[in-house]
Amino acid sequence: MRIALLGGTGDIGQGLALRWAYDTDHEIVIGSRDPERARTAAEEYETELDSRGLDRKITGFANEMAADRADVVVLAVPPYHVGDTVDAVAEKLDEGTILVSPAVGMRRDDDGLHYNPPPAGSVTQLVADRAPEGVPVVGAFHSLSADRLANLALEFDLDTLLVGDDPDAKSTVRLLAEGIEGLRALDAGPLANAAEVESLTPLSITVGRYNDGLHDLGVRFR
Amino acid sequence: MRIALLGGTGDIGQGLALRWAYDTDHEIVIGSRDPERARTAAEEYETELDSRGLDRKITGFANEMAADRADVVVLAVPPYHVGDTVDAVAEKLDEGTILVSPAVGMRRDDDGLHYNPPPAGSVTQLVADRAPEGVPVVGAFHSLSADRLANLALEFDLDTLLVGDDPDAKSTVRLLAEGIEGLRALDAGPLANAAEVESLTPLSITVGRYNDGLHDLGVRFR
Repeated sequence: MRIALLGGTGDIGQGLALRWAYDTDHEIVIGSRDPERARTAAEEYETELDSRGLDRKITGFANEMAADRADVVVLAVPPYHVGDTVDAVAEKLDEGTILVSPAVGMRRDDDGLHYNPPPAGSVTQLVADRAPEGVPVVGAFHSLSADRLANLALEFDLDTLLVGDDPDAKSTVRLLAEGIEGLRALDAGPLANAAEVESLTPLSITVGRYNDGLHDLGVRFR
Repeated sequence: MRIALLGGTGDIGQGLALRWAYDTDHEIVIGSRDPERARTAAEEYETELDSRGLDRKITGFANEMAADRADVVVLAVPPYHVGDTVDAVAEKLDEGTILVSPAVGMRRDDDGLHYNPPPAGSVTQLVADRAPEGVPVVGAFHSLSADRLANLALEFDLDTLLVGDDPDAKSTVRLLAEGIEGLRALDAGPLANAAEVESLTPLSITVGRYNDGLHDLGVRFR
């Protein structure tokens, strides 16, 4: 499968790119608003994989080019860029291309870090509202520590929660997710549940902050 | 320590009463609006413990009487009764008695189960707003399945998250929580984080609903 990671130069994009490149045979395309930055990041990821004995081709393009002919487009951009990024690539999305939304709106104040969804109710819902007709949206990969993803020496034993209204798209993203060793994908129901799913991200960061010896936390349901 | 479980005839009250009685030496007092129901429940819990070879005294009283001279008062009542219950027992709370809030506001609609906090922002905050001066409030035990707590044959390997603004009260509740075998208490910071903590309860129920083979779910941060 061809996976485009828009904003793939950022933390979560880097982590997903490295894991998918390392653990699967999917074609990985890095997107950025600046194609030069995308190409540089792709080369860095190749170097990292090479250092682990893996000769792997990763390409970098402007977001629009990266999204072109991708089977799955991951919106690995900050929450306030998600809407613009969907608009920018909308014409390049084929019917059936799956949009994946991992971003979470958070607000830091004196009390700590809080869930701060956009007016749509969740970032995933915002993406669904902006996505072209026929392009299914799946929320996934929200509460995974980017640092833990990017460190290929670390084993995973974590869950990611999937929300979406299109069962086929959700199945595809589940397979993609479980291609990453040790990552279990759990169904969290329809898009309407995205707020509770996204809310787990600031909570995981908070728990890591307040408990000695715990950091870069993820969650396992049991 | 003397622990009063107000609404201790309900699911979560039963679960906590049985676990504390089984795993610790704390004095367990069951409260209910109807003292007769509290006494009946206390006897049932004694019978359950007796069937497991434990001769344990559990008493039952009206909520006001149960709260009297308790070191810790757990508000194991539905979220819409929490405020009234605090008001009903307020005169019986000594300065330093710790109020523990495990309740979560949820709303079921066509899309599923959603977090539905009161206007205070969270049930825990509502309790803090209604608590008498000098009575610290700790949010805890939100996302634990009552059925799993009540089944003493099941081993635990779960986390509970604590929120509160009084460090001493939080330490006491942490010790109480970790008196239950296999339950790990993690600090989730100040009361202001209660919404994210409470939100984990509908999410855990949702994940249990949508994934075959998983039910009565809890969470482990790792």
